[in-house]
Amino acid sequence: MSTNSPEQSRKNLNRFLAPRSIAVIGASDRPGSLGLRTMRNLEAYSGRLFPVSRRLEKIGDHRCYASMDDLPDAPDCAILAVPAAAVEAEVEACARRGVGGCVVFASGYGELDDAECAAAQKRLRDLAGEAGMRLLGPNTTGFANFALGAHAGFAEFPGGVADGGKGIGLVSQSGALGLALAQSAEHGTGISHVLTCGNSADIEVADLVSFLTDQPEVGAIALTFEGINSPERLIEAVRNATASGKPVAICRVGVTPAGASAVRWHTGTNPHVDYPWDENLAQAGASIVRGAERLVETAAFLAKTADLARPSAAPAVAILSSSGGSGILAADGATAAGVPLAVFSDETSALLAQELPSFASPRNPCDATAQATANPPMVTRCADILLSDPAVDCLVLPWGKAWDSGQFGALSDLVEAHGKPICLVWMSQWLEGPGADAAEATKRLCVFRSIAGCFSALATWRKADSA
Amino acid sequence: MSTNSPEQSRKNLNRFLAPRSIAVIGASDRPGSLGLRTMRNLEAYSGRLFPVSRRLEKIGDHRCYASMDDLPDAPDCAILAVPAAAVEAEVEACARRGVGGCVVFASGYGELDDAECAAAQKRLRDLAGEAGMRLLGPNTTGFANFALGAHAGFAEFPGGVADGGKGIGLVSQSGALGLALAQSAEHGTGISHVLTCGNSADIEVADLVSFLTDQPEVGAIALTFEGINSPERLIEAVRNATASGKPVAICRVGVTPAGASAVRWHTGTNPHVDYPWDENLAQAGASIVRGAERLVETAAFLAKTADLARPSAAPAVAILSSSGGSGILAADGATAAGVPLAVFSDETSALLAQELPSFASPRNPCDATAQATANPPMVTRCADILLSDPAVDCLVLPWGKAWDSGQFGALSDLVEAHGKPICLVWMSQWLEGPGADAAEATKRLCVFRSIAGCFSALATWRKADSA
Repeated sequence: MSTNSPEQSRKNLNRFLAPRSIAVIGASDRPGSLGLRTMRNLEAYSGRLFPVSRRLEKIGDHRCYASMDDLPDAPDCAILAVPAAAVEAEVEACARRGVGGCVVFASGYGELDDAECAAAQKRLRDLAGEAGMRLLGPNTTGFANFALGAHAGFAEFPGGVADGGKGIGLVSQSGALGLALAQSAEHGTGISHVLTCGNSADIEVADLVSFLTDQPEVGAIALTFEGINSPERLIEAVRNATASGKPVAICRVGVTPAGASAVRWHTGTNPHVDYPWDENLAQAGASIVRGAERLVETAAFLAKTADLARPSAAPAVAILSSSGGSGILAADGATAAGVPLAVFSDETSALLAQELPSFASPRNPCDATAQATANPPMVTRCADILLSDPAVDCLVLPWGKAWDSGQFGALSDLVEAHGKPICLVWMSQWLEGPGADAAEATKRLCVFRSIAGCFSALATWRKADSA
Repeated sequence: MSTNSPEQSRKNLNRFLAPRSIAVIGASDRPGSLGLRTMRNLEAYSGRLFPVSRRLEKIGDHRCYASMDDLPDAPDCAILAVPAAAVEAEVEACARRGVGGCVVFASGYGELDDAECAAAQKRLRDLAGEAGMRLLGPNTTGFANFALGAHAGFAEFPGGVADGGKGIGLVSQSGALGLALAQSAEHGTGISHVLTCGNSADIEVADLVSFLTDQPEVGAIALTFEGINSPERLIEAVRNATASGKPVAICRVGVTPAGASAVRWHTGTNPHVDYPWDENLAQAGASIVRGAERLVETAAFLAKTADLARPSAAPAVAILSSSGGSGILAADGATAAGVPLAVFSDETSALLAQELPSFASPRNPCDATAQATANPPMVTRCADILLSDPAVDCLVLPWGKAWDSGQFGALSDLVEAHGKPICLVWMSQWLEGPGADAAEATKRLCVFRSIAGCFSALATWRKADSA
């Protein structure tokens, strides 16, 4: 094996991250071990699984192999659940065997301020590179491709996408942060992939974005990263993704001097502090997110609106609230984010006035008052009136108490009918209270947990700048 | 009754908001009616309850009275669950009878752009004022004093405080926003009071802050408001509260031109757009909060740290994470908020190095790596080491996955031992996943849902400016 052409490398990346066969080197039955945790994560895997263990003959129903050389075929993916001292020999064995790519969990490489450790990492990269084999890590928690049940890692990434739907492809350099974000799946966010790359000796976030761009089950990409070899490669990958109808939300880690210097001793990668990240990522069509807690909801918004036509400037919003206070907060939030409030036509105001109680306001923000709770279909009718106004590009509903009005489906249908997004801002501090999961699971309804997060996403929801 | 002295007014405010007897005018058994919803909310009320109904003889076990004049005693609180057309006559009856104060639910007063409605509101205020009687509303959802079970309103405010503890006194001009915020009680936040004042014809948020300042079960005050008669009265009330050991967190509504003009048609109160709110509130010792979703968590932080000595400048923080990525995000957040990262002493670094795995970092931010999950007591020992360093004023723990480590109590004990706060930032997007409620219920552990919210609160956690 010495085909190290770029094409072979790309081919092996796809082979590796959508594997039809996986070897677990260091497979184990010892409680708490990485080898056992990895085997358990692969219980739902649809492909062929080869546990590699010198000590065991079987793990569960799976026959074990004593070494990579004993496998019947070269697996698409090999997971190295072995200590750092054993990694290099196993990477060599994988390269020799023609494996598509390796996952290396072990720490103690480029993230340490130590020349010897950095050299060891470079040797792994070169071994893989010479064979055209790909390498994820070291210092990674691995990856999960939920469509295949291929959870090639030791962490407990939750995920999966409701039948026929598209999900969020989550890319995180940090494994633990990736897990924290992936846990949004626990309340129904569709997650198609969780891909983490740690020290990024070979595969870095740019490669992972490119991989996700080609996956049909991906609706949008959520990316968090701290350092990279080449900023330009990432910009290019993001540009390709957005141009291919896979919008990208990005939360950068290490944006301040204190953060950037900590990047050095976390993954040992280069944060490129002087690179104009925000400008270039935005020009490539990405939605920049401030605050990790806003990343997944922003990606979900992008996935649910991916096929709607974006306006050429920030969308003019109509605000329809069941609480004057929340409506005013939303007007504040729109203004602060540079998102204009739509000016309703006289017809719209007249139609609203027919629907609303006499003490409610047909202006923007439109306060439907507590009557919204007493009469949920009224809210849907008002939403229809507002989305019919050509001056309105998008509707924002600050949603008061935790509550399922029974109208989520009807609101989603309005999005389809008008081709304009509806964003529901969950104002209740009962964060996962009644209606929260249902709203999020509704096909076209975009849910945000803060007004600032909603308008920050809407501010970027416009046609990409022509370069 | 014509004692309208300021002392009588103050006395009646306390009498009204901590009532030993409540009359419900317009008490009803009609499903969905405000009269029935209010009666139901008073099921746990510990005082005497007088339903007033011309039509009914009894509601449940309670004998009804045909009018206010038929009551055996003048109640401390009268709730007017009647249409606007009947309000004025009932307010007159209450004033005549010597009631402490009235809650007026009805809308259609000063919030409308209508001189007649404004005049009607003024008449209510004058009727109450001449009798020294207090008036909450109109256009209010009422109030709840959970210690007494006195839920004098038609909304479903949840609340209550675990035995012996102190809670958050929540003041919101907007009733629906108050309900959305009060729903934090559903996952264990201790809420002692929810007080909403709507159009604020008489009682405004300044009065409510003053009332809460005197209540022993209040640990901190959370305030959201949009307009007020006199900014100076509120500043004075906030200054008194903070000086009395009741810290105040404030989220202002209507801070932009678009928001401020919407205030006009929501409650018809004056937002005083040109008043230097932030400067003066901060000087009065309040913690200014941007984003309604951060208000209750900030107030909970203030309640849990109320008796700890604040530093004279923004506290120097130590960051201890179980994920390098989260630690870096925290370092970014501290820097962005102007909160300094503590520089650890050599002794601290040496002690940390003994605890941490070799590939972890004893610097700030300190990444305990995934070993933190494998070995929770190690985190507690590191926290002890960090809080022992005189350079550290406060510890921030970005908490990775949703998980109860079993160490929350031990961490809380460290806060008591060192007299320094510990803030746990819930990074998981499983918002109410395992451990979330337990962390929040832990006496001294402060929980935030975002890094930005945590450091925004810490930035204000310093000794009040000397005026």
